[in-house]
Amino acid sequence: MDLLGVLPLDELSHGLANLSMFPYFDMAHYIISVMALREQPGALEVSRVSPLACWFSSMLFCFGGAVLSAVMLAEPVVAPLSNSTSVLLASVVWYLVFYCPMDLVYCCAALLPLRLVLSGMKEVTRTWKVLGGVTQAHGKYKDSLLVMIAIGWAKGAGGGLISNFEQLVRGVWKPETNELLKMSYPTKITLIGAVLFALQQTHYLPVQKHHLMLIYTVFTVVNKSRMMLTGSSASPFAAVESAIYKTLFTGCSPYAALTGEVNKAFIDNGTGSTPTSTSATKESDKNGTAGNHTPVKGQSGSHKAKEESENTEETSCKKTD
Amino acid sequence: MDLLGVLPLDELSHGLANLSMFPYFDMAHYIISVMALREQPGALEVSRVSPLACWFSSMLFCFGGAVLSAVMLAEPVVAPLSNSTSVLLASVVWYLVFYCPMDLVYCCAALLPLRLVLSGMKEVTRTWKVLGGVTQAHGKYKDSLLVMIAIGWAKGAGGGLISNFEQLVRGVWKPETNELLKMSYPTKITLIGAVLFALQQTHYLPVQKHHLMLIYTVFTVVNKSRMMLTGSSASPFAAVESAIYKTLFTGCSPYAALTGEVNKAFIDNGTGSTPTSTSATKESDKNGTAGNHTPVKGQSGSHKAKEESENTEETSCKKTD
Amino acid sequence: MDLLGVLPLDELSHGLANLSMFPYFDMAHYIISVMALREQPGALEVSRVSPLACWFSSMLFCFGGAVLSAVMLAEPVVAPLSNSTSVLLASVVWYLVFYCPMDLVYCCAALLPLRLVLSGMKEVTRTWKVLGGVTQAHGKYKDSLLVMIAIGWAKGAGGGLISNFEQLVRGVWKPETNELLKMSYPTKITLIGAVLFALQQTHYLPVQKHHLMLIYTVFTVVNKSRMMLTGSSASPFAAVESAIYKTLFTGCSPYAALTGEVNKAFIDNGTGSTPTSTSATKESDKNGTAGNHTPVKGQSGSHKAKEESENTEETSCKKTD
Repeated sequence: MDLLGVLPLDELSHGLANLSMFPYFDMAHYIISVMALREQPGALEVSRVSPLACWFSSMLFCFGGAVLSAVMLAEPVVAPLSNSTSVLLASVVWYLVFYCPMDLVYCCAALLPLRLVLSGMKEVTRTWKVLGGVTQAHGKYKDSLLVMIAIGWAKGAGGGLISNFEQLVRGVWKPETNELLKMSYPTKITLIGAVLFALQQTHYLPVQKHHLMLIYTVFTVVNKSRMMLTGSSASPFAAVESAIYKTLFTGCSPYAALTGEVNKAFIDNGTGSTPTSTSATKESDKNGTAGNHTPVKGQSGSHKAKEESENTEETSCKKTD
Repeated sequence: MDLLGVLPLDELSHGLANLSMFPYFDMAHYIISVMALREQPGALEVSRVSPLACWFSSMLFCFGGAVLSAVMLAEPVVAPLSNSTSVLLASVVWYLVFYCPMDLVYCCAALLPLRLVLSGMKEVTRTWKVLGGVTQAHGKYKDSLLVMIAIGWAKGAGGGLISNFEQLVRGVWKPETNELLKMSYPTKITLIGAVLFALQQTHYLPVQKHHLMLIYTVFTVVNKSRMMLTGSSASPFAAVESAIYKTLFTGCSPYAALTGEVNKAFIDNGTGSTPTSTSATKESDKNGTAGNHTPVKGQSGSHKAKEESENTEETSCKKTD
Repeated sequence: MDLLGVLPLDELSHGLANLSMFPYFDMAHYIISVMALREQPGALEVSRVSPLACWFSSMLFCFGGAVLSAVMLAEPVVAPLSNSTSVLLASVVWYLVFYCPMDLVYCCAALLPLRLVLSGMKEVTRTWKVLGGVTQAHGKYKDSLLVMIAIGWAKGAGGGLISNFEQLVRGVWKPETNELLKMSYPTKITLIGAVLFALQQTHYLPVQKHHLMLIYTVFTVVNKSRMMLTGSSASPFAAVESAIYKTLFTGCSPYAALTGEVNKAFIDNGTGSTPTSTSATKESDKNGTAGNHTPVKGQSGSHKAKEESENTEETSCKKTD
């Protein structure tokens, strides 16, 4: 009946579905998350000036998904703190990555082979988080596909979605960019996962759960590894995105000229280059006030930095010597 | 006993109270809300660069009241998303207003007669939302007038009250202005409605609910139509506000000179002109740092733009050709 | 068995533990809180331009702890508003401090002896708030020390912790500073109190609750009075903090030079002087964009102003003549 059922992959998918995330996969997630924080511009200075703000930021990187989904479902946001073992583990990782003598832990973890393995393990936790979010939402809102997608997405990509407020903890404020205006690769892949698992949960997608888990996990791990090894941040969905965008969101509007231009920028974004929407820039010049940020302008820079931070290898360790 | 009871208006008020908001009035609310978003500076650029951010912003314009009151009452903020029909309707409206071929929908809806009807229908939904909020708060906090007013206000004027965070979704950040610092007309009228319905609910106001609904609805619709037809944004409460302000909030303080000046600015605000509180401007110049915004300065500009956006007619359509 | 038990202090501690905060101590808290708001730069202009924004800001100063802990525990944030008597009392205080004819109330309360008494009484309420938060968290999360500390801290120092968002109400936005990046004295002493009461609650600290209440209250009141009388903002924990910092958060890292410099700045901070982390400043210069704030820079200014605002005496009243 099911193609995957007759293959030995069925056993593999069952094995994967019964895998426990704690402690190894969770730890890999914490290490990669805290390293991503450390590679943010200004994060090291914050870690020296205020270890508490740095710790709080790290916890938002590690448990951002749990916090965001708690806010969305009106559950206590302190709940993640109540899981003492996880918080302790994440705190130890935070301490070692930021304050280890000789910077040993960070330099080791930043070596390409180890980072590759840890990133792969972190991608595995994504499947569990998205599925957990979708299941939780399904328990509360039986028939609402949209809520399931929203909670699954929030749980899997929470750290990215709340990045504006995480930055605020560190005294950084970049209102001109957010994950909705320009999605990074992890946010995109999580959204796709949330849609797939929500469709599976409501039986619109005729696949068994453990098969979908296997397929999705393999795809994310392979894709992440490919991106790290080739150093490219080209999205595998660029072509599909561009096609959808051209079909749905252009049309013959009085903004044809503008649309064409921004559309080009949009497609460029998909492949990682810098968008320069001149019309938006003009707009912001017209405003004149430094505080009133208009979108688009400058948003790609920080995102690029973020994405690169996950793709940089041992060079980033040498850089700091 | 009741003056309204002996008139044929009684039947009318009963008829109004039994009116269903879904689907026609709700749709008018969505159309006018999404059009107001589209007329925000920079919104069109966002709609081309990131349809998702644009959709999310539109949902905040349409369901802002439900979201804000959910936050205030610690109920799930995703609850509005679980009403699939409403979200679908709002999404269709969003798509048609922003991406319709030839921009047909926006240009039609922006014609004065149609816009007048739609705006009137949107004002009707305000009564229902305010009353819904007051009733909901009354169910939870029996004797707290203040909570009833707060929830009624939040439900009726949520989109405006959370505008700072709605703008953040689009990459815009204007900390120097918010609806509390300088209330727009819709926020004011909603606050008055919330006070009236809360007083009625606690029997301090000896009026029957359906009579109050009729009076409030007629007042908001007539007033909105008058403002759109005359193109004036003069508040009908300017005189009362000014009197209350002079009585309560000036007094013989050491700031007499300052107060007089700002008071003048305040009254000017009431009638729609531009306030220039020189003392506040001096303050902000003294600070010097671009990031530390002091209030007052520049706040009127954006509000004026917002209010005008609701008063502009078909010209705004031509402008874009 | 207990050293304090044999002293007449035992009776005193029982008496203190049975003390009612309402109305006198609560009122002292409201007066000092609203005066602290009034002494913020730009607050007086806001009070003239928008009494509503000013009132809302005052309520956040008075009930910030209750609001923040409600958010963290997913309880309704409007709950503090439902306590009509407290809100009425705080509103009367707000009105008198900002709008009293001849500015009588503010000038009287700003006289050193009266301000000293009121500040002392406000410090007493801190004990009750921290203990209330710890007890509430203990009721929900039995064995989680971290949650108890978080809620106790939030309840006791909420106004400070949410200051970024309180400022936003007044149209001020200072993302480059917050209470986590550079803790003020009240926030620090509240955190210590939250840790002590959480340890007592879980029986790790072998002290009886009323004894701890007495010791903590006496310490905060005496220390606050000393700081106000000497006009010094030197933290009594500077030495301990510096020792902990040197032991845990430096280590032999590749950032030795940087660390040494920032470490120096950190210790200077502890004694109230101005930190100038050149590396962080360079970073912000490199960014160039006015909207992208990097931390550290300029953060001490506002905090100093805040701390001084509590230490200024009748001079601040004369200044305004």
